[in-house]
Parts: sequence; C-alpha cells; structure tokens
Amino acid sequence: MIVTLLTDFGLTDSYVAQMKAVLLARAPGATLVDVTHLIPPQDVRAGAFHLWAAAPAFPPGTVHLAVVDPGVGTARRALAARTRRGDCFVGPDNGLLVPALERLGGLDAAVALAVEGRASHTFHGRDVFAPAAAALAAGEPLEALGSRSDLLDRSAAFPVPRRTAAGLRGSVLASDAFGNLVTNLPADALPRSFDVHVAGRTIRGAPHASYEAVPPGKLLAVVGSASLLEISVRGGSARSLLRARVGTGVVVLVRRP
Amino acid sequence: MIVTLLTDFGLTDSYVAQMKAVLLARAPGATLVDVTHLIPPQDVRAGAFHLWAAAPAFPPGTVHLAVVDPGVGTARRALAARTRRGDCFVGPDNGLLVPALERLGGLDAAVALAVEGRASHTFHGRDVFAPAAAALAAGEPLEALGSRSDLLDRSAAFPVPRRTAAGLRGSVLASDAFGNLVTNLPADALPRSFDVHVAGRTIRGAPHASYEAVPPGKLLAVVGSASLLEISVRGGSARSLLRARVGTGVVVLVRRP
Amino acid sequence: MIVTLLTDFGLTDSYVAQMKAVLLARAPGATLVDVTHLIPPQDVRAGAFHLWAAAPAFPPGTVHLAVVDPGVGTARRALAARTRRGDCFVGPDNGLLVPALERLGGLDAAVALAVEGRASHTFHGRDVFAPAAAALAAGEPLEALGSRSDLLDRSAAFPVPRRTAAGLRGSVLASDAFGNLVTNLPADALPRSFDVHVAGRTIRGAPHASYEAVPPGKLLAVVGSASLLEISVRGGSARSLLRARVGTGVVVLVRRP
Repeated sequence: MIVTLLTDFGLTDSYVAQMKAVLLARAPGATLVDVTHLIPPQDVRAGAFHLWAAAPAFPPGTVHLAVVDPGVGTARRALAARTRRGDCFVGPDNGLLVPALERLGGLDAAVALAVEGRASHTFHGRDVFAPAAAALAAGEPLEALGSRSDLLDRSAAFPVPRRTAAGLRGSVLASDAFGNLVTNLPADALPRSFDVHVAGRTIRGAPHASYEAVPPGKLLAVVGSASLLEISVRGGSARSLLRARVGTGVVVLVRRP
Repeated sequence: MIVTLLTDFGLTDSYVAQMKAVLLARAPGATLVDVTHLIPPQDVRAGAFHLWAAAPAFPPGTVHLAVVDPGVGTARRALAARTRRGDCFVGPDNGLLVPALERLGGLDAAVALAVEGRASHTFHGRDVFAPAAAALAAGEPLEALGSRSDLLDRSAAFPVPRRTAAGLRGSVLASDAFGNLVTNLPADALPRSFDVHVAGRTIRGAPHASYEAVPPGKLLAVVGSASLLEISVRGGSARSLLRARVGTGVVVLVRRP
Repeated sequence: MIVTLLTDFGLTDSYVAQMKAVLLARAPGATLVDVTHLIPPQDVRAGAFHLWAAAPAFPPGTVHLAVVDPGVGTARRALAARTRRGDCFVGPDNGLLVPALERLGGLDAAVALAVEGRASHTFHGRDVFAPAAAALAAGEPLEALGSRSDLLDRSAAFPVPRRTAAGLRGSVLASDAFGNLVTNLPADALPRSFDVHVAGRTIRGAPHASYEAVPPGKLLAVVGSASLLEISVRGGSARSLLRARVGTGVVVLVRRP
C-alpha cells in the first residue's frame, strides 16, 4: 500500500521522519512517497494545490497524508476521508484535502479522528494523522477511525474561472520551481486559438505546442501536465518576468480568423 | 528492517544516494528513511539533537546511520553501538550518537569499526559506515563488526538545566524551520504555572496549551513534541523575534498564586 | 529492482512524486532511490556529472531514470539504454546519460522511446520516461520499448585532461555542497608527489592524505571519493576561497626530489 506525505515541515528538521517512523511501525509493508515538505509554512492553499496536482498520478487506494495545519492544538477537526475511487486522505479539516478529494471522484465518506489525551499539542502529524494513515494502510476500515462527519471545510477550494463574451477570465493558481505559472483554466474549456493577457502583457497565438514554439526568453502559453493552461518563458521564469503571484488575473481572448 | 540516515551532506550532491546504494546492495530488504541531510556542515551538536529527536519514534531494533564527521580520514574512531532496547547506531565517535543512545535506554555495547585500506579518505559514510549499517540490517551481530570499545566521546552531550531557588535555568538546544526554539527544559521538571525570561523578554502564564492561547504575533511557551519546553510565536518565528540561537539562556520562574 | 531518480525538478513541486506514482503503479516492487532533484534548472552537464558519480555505487541491473530536459516537447529523442554490465538508463538524448553509461562498461544497446499522443508536451518525465523505467524494472526487455538507436548525443561528455611536459592540465568538473572542487584528473594518472596550480594559488605537497594534513582554513588537494583529484579547504569552502567554477583550469606539476 502506498502512503504519500505532504507537509510544510521542511527538510531540515526530523518531523517528517518521526511521522514515517509511526507509519512504518504500524504499517510495516507500506511504501512511503514524499509529495513535498516545502509547502510555505501554514499556506493551506499551496498545500491544497500540490496535493491536487499529485494525487491523480497515484493508483486508486493510495492513502494521502497531508499536514499543513495552522490550527494544530485548537478545535479544528482532524479528518480521514475516502473518495468514491477508493483513495484515502488524512489531514486537518481546513480545506487542504478538498480539491484533491473532488478531483478523485468526490467524497464517499469522512470521519472526525479522535485526539487522544497523550497526543502532543503541537505535532498532530505524528500523534494523530500518521496513526490514522497507518491504520488505513494496514487495512482498517475508515469507519473504525472516528465518528462520521461528511461536511468538510471548503475554504481552500480553487477559484472558478468565468466565461466572458470574448473568452475566459481566470487566475494564477500556483507557480513551480521553473517559474511556470499554472492557471485555473482547464484545457477543455480553452478556445482553439487565443491570445492571453496577463500582468500587462499579451501572449499571441496560444496555445503553443511546446517551449520551442517561441524564441528563448519569450513568453508562451501551453497546456501543462495538469491539463491546465500554463504561462511560461522559454529557458526562463515567467514568475520573475511578469512579477506574477497566486491570484494574478489571466484573460483568454478568442482569436477570430 | 528500518535503516535511518542523518548527515550534513545536503541534497544537491549524490553522496546520500551513494550510501543508500551500498545499503541496498548489501541489505536488499532494508527500508530506508531519511531523518535529515541538512544538518549545517560539520555541526555535530545539531546532528546530535536531530538524531535524539527522531530516534524514539522508530520501533526498537531500528539501525540509525548518522554521519556528521569533521574528522573523516583522521584517527577519530568509527563506531557501531547497540542500546539496551536493541536499536543500533553507526557513525563517528565524536559525540553525535550519544544523546540518542542515552534516550533509548543507554549503551549495551559498542565496537570500533575497522577502516579498510580501500576506503576513501573523504567519504567514510559510503565506505565505512554504510557497510556496517547494512551488515546490522542484514542481521549480522554487532560484535562481528569490530573490537569492543565502550568508552564513547561525550562532547556533544546536551547542557543540563539547573534548579534555582525560584525555578529553572536552561538554554536553547535547537530551533526548527518554523522558528520554534526548543529548550533543554523537560516537561516533567516544569512547575505547574510559570513565567519565562528569554532574550530580554518575559512570557507570562506558561505553559500555554496551544498556539491559539495567545494572539497572532505574540510569544508563548508550550510543551513541544519532544516533551521539552519550546518558545514560539503564534504564526511567526520566535528565532527571528528574539534573535535567539543555540545556547541562549532560558529562565523559568515559578508563579505563586 | 532498484530505480534511481535524478532530475532538475526541485523539491518544492510534486513533479518527482508524480513520476514515482507512475513507477510504483507499474512496478509495485521497485525500490526507489533519489539521486538528487536539485540539479540547476536545465543544466545537463551538472546532471551528467552527478549521475556519473552516483551510478557505480549501485548494484548491476539498477535502472537509472534521469531527466534534465531543456528540449522537452521538441524533436530530441527519448532514450532507454543498457550497459554491458546490465544497468539501464532512461532519459533524454542530450548527453545526460553518456558519462555514466561509459563508466559502467559502455553501451550495449539503446532504443528510441515512442512518445504517445496522450503524453503531455511539458512533462515527459512522468509520461514517457517513468513508464519506460517502470517497464524495465518490471522485467520487460529493452528492445520491447522502441526502435534500436545506438548513436547517442555526446555533448555533455567530460573534458579530457591533457598530459604536459611537466605534469597534467585539467579542470573543475563540479563542486559539492561543502565547496570541494572535483577535477577531471583521475587518481591513477597523478604523479606520486605534485603541486597544484588553480585560480592563481599554489597547493604544495599534494596529494594530501586527509583534510587534517593542513591547518584549518588552508587549501589541500586530495583524491576524493570518485577517485578524482579534489581541491578543498579544511573546514571551509574551496569554491568560495578560489572563486572557482566549472571549467576553472587545474594544473598539476610533478615535484622532483
């Protein structure tokens, strides 16, 4: 059974290793895969994006353990959830899990995890979430982990793009280490041929087939690996060039022959 | 069998992968878990802290391979050691292993590893320590790896807090990626209610139950996940706010009703 | 079966995890080992060096998946190759694989991977290379993955050192996180006793047996873990001290008694 881990714990401390220790002690046969531990501290929205991006690549039945948890130690609920496809998600009920859950077929059932008195007040990743993920990886049914609770916090849901008379209006969801800007505009909603307006610049003749469609240093717009429109610079960083950030508006205008 | 790895080798080079190659070639069934490879170069004390923090989460019998080794290639001894609980530690005899060994029940036996002539002078992690850890993971007895040698270098032992008339006097052991300051003051030595003096500031009404006990941006003192007192800022970095570092003094004063 | 991964994808995004998902879905028994994902973006030469450095430590038959791929989505070929020793390499045909292939006994056979229409234009790591590596890890023969194609791009081959009347003339191949400079001068070509000229400085009495052969802060020249001459500073960074970079010249002059 595969268990993925996504956190904002960074790679300098041993927090991730402590979670893995709990997972392997309770589910010795589990295969652990790091999604990323470099989510900016407490940035639930960035965590939700990366979990959404990674989860569909994993086989059905994978357990996804995600902890970006500014509310640790408070009354926010701890969750385990199952999708209609049979994947499981474990993490805080702060919106982090919702986009990925919905991308994998939507919620089948969720339970609120009990927080035992022995659990630390600062590290539910190790003391609450990892034990629940290990139980699921070891074959325990979701329903055994807590009381049914299907109403999830949806506050980290992605903004929805709008159709306009001339095309689409969306925004930047995330940027990656190469400086590519991932938008919320899905490939199947895009016109056949279009221009993109973003951060005061115009990118003509989109969608481009590959980075080589433009000269080095130039902007392009390509359908990326998550089937979303991405703004890139060939051999450079669109984030730097455009000084764009999460939320920056992206307008798609249909090109007419 | 779980083998953990902790080094100061960083994540940009292939040194860690070369150690894993040796481990998997000689102990193909081993499950490898990275503790961290971002110990500041040659900072034995930081390595000792993170190994101490991580080790108790792993099941008894785990093999911990730790290499922060400014003396590589010199006469410093190479060690393999077993705790009374049955865990094994492999690494240089420079103090790195001692706090973790003692936390897991103390030393049962240690041997000095032979350094073969073929070993490189600069990379004992791959050529001396990984082969020894692999042998232990493959079930070889500790005693087969070298000559008995139980007197370990204790120079990276943690400073011991002192009791005073009014409370406790300790210091900062480490800080984490969130900027939390981990002190050497154990939960079971703390008074029921106390104030903390650190870096010219006073934190009243400790211990706090969770980060939400104070307003955003404010200092608090909480029992952390290693059962030590930690100084934090809600939604911020205590390290930055206090300009604190390893060794910064922390004074606990009992509150009287 | 071990599958190693080397990319320039960084550790902040989920790209590496998406590749691992494909590997584990298709080759569930594979053991995955990260070589590094912090190759500077699109630096094929640095990727070639680290793959070369890591590969010999792994047991014969290992599958090495390497993606540093500025030409993704263009006509550059996608390759799978087998060495005479039985190791496999999968990656773009841009020179990345060649030094490692040659170090492990040279090319036995290579095939050009077919790129299916469903593959994304920006992420062949997940959609082309990982499926091929998984097939090899699952025991599929190389020849089943594409059409035979043994002429590889050699543009990232290492520069070859030259013999001179007085010794050797080479250059810096790479530097590591400690600031050690790895040269292209192999141990078995070095004189018994020599001086090194690099970046306007002279290092006398090389090769040094270990870092302790010189006082703290001083330059030394040692045979490193890849059996190449390395320039180091004891307890410091030779890269910073010498302001050296990849390509900086390194001259070895024989010492006469």
